[in-house]
Amino acid sequence: MPWYPLVRLIPRVVASIAASEFPLMYQLAEWIAVMASGIYGMLLARQHQMDFIGVFSVGFIVAFGGGTLRDLFLNRHPLFWIQHEHYPVVVFAIAVAFSLVPRIPRWAERALTVSDALGLGLYSVVGATIALEVGTSHFIAAMFGVITGTFGGVIGDVVCNRVPSLFTSAPFFATCAFVGSWLLFLMDAWGVDRALSFPLAVGFIVLSRLASLHFDWRMRTLEFEDPGE
Amino acid sequence: MPWYPLVRLIPRVVASIAASEFPLMYQLAEWIAVMASGIYGMLLARQHQMDFIGVFSVGFIVAFGGGTLRDLFLNRHPLFWIQHEHYPVVVFAIAVAFSLVPRIPRWAERALTVSDALGLGLYSVVGATIALEVGTSHFIAAMFGVITGTFGGVIGDVVCNRVPSLFTSAPFFATCAFVGSWLLFLMDAWGVDRALSFPLAVGFIVLSRLASLHFDWRMRTLEFEDPGE
Amino acid sequence: MPWYPLVRLIPRVVASIAASEFPLMYQLAEWIAVMASGIYGMLLARQHQMDFIGVFSVGFIVAFGGGTLRDLFLNRHPLFWIQHEHYPVVVFAIAVAFSLVPRIPRWAERALTVSDALGLGLYSVVGATIALEVGTSHFIAAMFGVITGTFGGVIGDVVCNRVPSLFTSAPFFATCAFVGSWLLFLMDAWGVDRALSFPLAVGFIVLSRLASLHFDWRMRTLEFEDPGE
Repeated sequence: MPWYPLVRLIPRVVASIAASEFPLMYQLAEWIAVMASGIYGMLLARQHQMDFIGVFSVGFIVAFGGGTLRDLFLNRHPLFWIQHEHYPVVVFAIAVAFSLVPRIPRWAERALTVSDALGLGLYSVVGATIALEVGTSHFIAAMFGVITGTFGGVIGDVVCNRVPSLFTSAPFFATCAFVGSWLLFLMDAWGVDRALSFPLAVGFIVLSRLASLHFDWRMRTLEFEDPGE
Repeated sequence: MPWYPLVRLIPRVVASIAASEFPLMYQLAEWIAVMASGIYGMLLARQHQMDFIGVFSVGFIVAFGGGTLRDLFLNRHPLFWIQHEHYPVVVFAIAVAFSLVPRIPRWAERALTVSDALGLGLYSVVGATIALEVGTSHFIAAMFGVITGTFGGVIGDVVCNRVPSLFTSAPFFATCAFVGSWLLFLMDAWGVDRALSFPLAVGFIVLSRLASLHFDWRMRTLEFEDPGE
Repeated sequence: MPWYPLVRLIPRVVASIAASEFPLMYQLAEWIAVMASGIYGMLLARQHQMDFIGVFSVGFIVAFGGGTLRDLFLNRHPLFWIQHEHYPVVVFAIAVAFSLVPRIPRWAERALTVSDALGLGLYSVVGATIALEVGTSHFIAAMFGVITGTFGGVIGDVVCNRVPSLFTSAPFFATCAFVGSWLLFLMDAWGVDRALSFPLAVGFIVLSRLASLHFDWRMRTLEFEDPGE
């Protein structure tokens, strides 16, 4: 493994964060979202008995999949993980560390539920904000919130050959992102400053997600009944 | 669910159709194609016991998947469902209505065969036309007809964890789109006006698709025989 | 099938190769990579009992999937298979020929191992080189080498409803592409001419891949042990 070039990247990482034209709050939110969802993907990969390449790749796909779709669909270049070139390096480093852990303790899985909810909240609100800045309608922007927040996991599930858990009757997930995005737009309309409305919307998504998990709030499955058979 | 913003969109929807720089015929064709393939995706989702989010998402993926690939591959921005921002709203409304239907009657499935064929015909000819306008070769344009017409369903199948029915030995589907696109190019070469050749090519695709289903026209499966085992 | 337009393409194919602004070495490398990975995809399709459309589609996806992701992610337009419009025609012709073969002899599969390794080596080094030219960091460029070399096969596996063999504990594949890309960058830093370093890096990837297959070099599977169950 070529470690030397990785070490040489560190000053560039610091410079890249400092010089970012992005406001610091969004930057920090995206940073945590990348790590939280990357780790979630790596856990998924280990559940499917993959090797290091699989752990890194699925972590990469879950961490960057939703944001990559957002950037491609909105024609934003360079992609956010090419512009912030330290993101993939960090995911790589986490994958290396993660591969050295022989077994995943049970409390880690519970901790991951929180970090996954955090990733959902942060990515969704960042995604909805970016879409709005590009000039889409509110409905489309809310959809971009959902896509950014959830499609990394969807692609990860597809790659691991499972029906995406997002689509089956599971505790609220995409719904939290959708409602949370509208909440932000509503606060925008009321003139609430983003410095306040941004963390409020993220908080709503994270808490409603965790509450859905805890109280098992879910939509009912829609049956396909065929009276002719 | 934030219904109020949806209602406010209606005048914008009307304005967006009226002010469209796209000729009305293409516009109408795309509109019907979106609805037909969206409903097809929602039926697929219900067959897989998904909830409302799944029904909307798979409907969205089948309705816009092929056209999104076309727009990304040809670098056309904004994507057609971002430009025509009422399309996703309509798919959302259909998904809501669809989720309130407790059971799908048998005749609906038969009706869907027709609307699916219609979606194939319309999307394929629109896709091939757009590729040609961008300046691709005829062969590439015919492939864009096939991609636009069929890849929504392919991605929908992949997301539902099935081998895409397009690739297994099934009644002609992609073949109809490919031949229909060439038919349009042939009529272009003969100087036939698009106002005539467009509906003719769509009609050929729809009818050949329905005939393939009815008479079970299909290609033979290619075996992988290994004499060494 | 409309053969006549295909025949008319031949002079355009020759002109397209001759007038290519790409250096001849890269052009030839890409050409062989397209054919090698296209045939690999078609073999995969036949193993899954697909028909002609499936054989062509999976061949197309494996041949162009990785490079399409590279071009989309780096915002390079037109896509390489739209610019070099003879590539899809060649894959189409191979699919026709391939569909006429009633059974695949055992030696063909062994020959394919070599051509698959060749495709990996060529696509990876071309992909890494292109990313570097666009101005990405070395780490990102090495990742583009891996994406270009391997993701056609990953998407092909997903479409065929298998967990991508890349991610499970299989003989080194992505690792060869990653290390080979860094080898090229290292030789660049040492001032080695690309006319020498390019074939050396490709050769390293091809030989290390074949050696991994022969000696069964692989990473160990990472278990997901849960002491609580």
